[in-house]
Amino acid sequence: MALTSTLDTHASGPARSEERVVDFYFDFISPFGFFASLRIDALAARYGCRTRWNLMLIGVSVLKVMGMKPLLETPLKGSYILRDGNRYARREKIQLGREIDAPMVDPRPAGRAYSWIRQHRSDREREFAQRVFAAYWLQGQDISNAATLDQILATIGLDLPEVKTGIRSGEAASLLRHNVEASLERGVFGSPYFIVDGEPFFGVEKMELLEEWLKSGGW
Amino acid sequence: MALTSTLDTHASGPARSEERVVDFYFDFISPFGFFASLRIDALAARYGCRTRWNLMLIGVSVLKVMGMKPLLETPLKGSYILRDGNRYARREKIQLGREIDAPMVDPRPAGRAYSWIRQHRSDREREFAQRVFAAYWLQGQDISNAATLDQILATIGLDLPEVKTGIRSGEAASLLRHNVEASLERGVFGSPYFIVDGEPFFGVEKMELLEEWLKSGGW
Repeated sequence: MALTSTLDTHASGPARSEERVVDFYFDFISPFGFFASLRIDALAARYGCRTRWNLMLIGVSVLKVMGMKPLLETPLKGSYILRDGNRYARREKIQLGREIDAPMVDPRPAGRAYSWIRQHRSDREREFAQRVFAAYWLQGQDISNAATLDQILATIGLDLPEVKTGIRSGEAASLLRHNVEASLERGVFGSPYFIVDGEPFFGVEKMELLEEWLKSGGW
Repeated sequence: MALTSTLDTHASGPARSEERVVDFYFDFISPFGFFASLRIDALAARYGCRTRWNLMLIGVSVLKVMGMKPLLETPLKGSYILRDGNRYARREKIQLGREIDAPMVDPRPAGRAYSWIRQHRSDREREFAQRVFAAYWLQGQDISNAATLDQILATIGLDLPEVKTGIRSGEAASLLRHNVEASLERGVFGSPYFIVDGEPFFGVEKMELLEEWLKSGGW
């Protein structure tokens, strides 16, 4: 946990006092995290806030720390989540490229790549994350595959030798571990999860409440 | 499960085609169920719908069927739920008479009483439920206590010998079991839970979406 101050300049320390930051936590393989990724920046901007994107891993928070089964495998709740996700997509006219309950891929290769880019090419971090989300949820691609990730790097002009080496390095793995630990330290247990003014909001359905909070200054 | 057609005239069979019914499922010891109970009738009425109140038991759905720990005892999620509940109460200006994370009482005595009244004095079912909720969440009373339940009966003019005997009878216990089974058959796993047009909505934070559904006719 001592890594916090040395490895990551994004999340360490409080935000500068004049700016209000909405922290957005997500896992690439979370459909609701994807849905939230499409709305959070515009939502925050309406109230003059900037967002900070942060990776978490449901496989660590839910399965290991909370000791729960994956939601989709939980009796009663699994079928609800599936239905709720598809209903949300219909309402928002999002054409999913994969079934919500299709077998998930390992999110760690994309997570390592994202973590490295966030650290070393923070100017492209957001775009990389958005393209990974789109590749997985809209195009139905396998984001655990190195070729898929390389293709995304190429699309955003980041297919440089040092980037391609970096995202597969031990440092990338260590940055990912750090990000996951940092999410747990802040109490993040699911995706999407938002924190603003120290106040946590879990779930895409809390985005209206988050918006009300930003608008009213809290209650 | 064959009890459905004989024991309960409330929930059996489809609603008459000309009326749209919002099924509201709750557990008396659920704070979010209480919060929802304060809003659901007015919400449904705005769209010309009536509500049907239905008891469920989180202790059965969550703990036994889903195999989960109580949410408040789940690492990370427990403290979030506590905070979220208190935040909701502040926003709605609800003065709670007990801590959300105070030890829960056994909801079954109140559940048996409610189930018997729902079956035999359905004209007073809603009022009884609302008073049980208020006794527990606003006045901090022990609703597992027979004297508390008797007092509620007196308040609503139902302290008749046959009611007082009925709510402690084997029939009341059987009606409660039936209600819980019926909730599980419909996939209900938490409180509050709503079903309208066959569409499920879980959680007090889904009430805006439920309202949008009622308004728009679904999507």
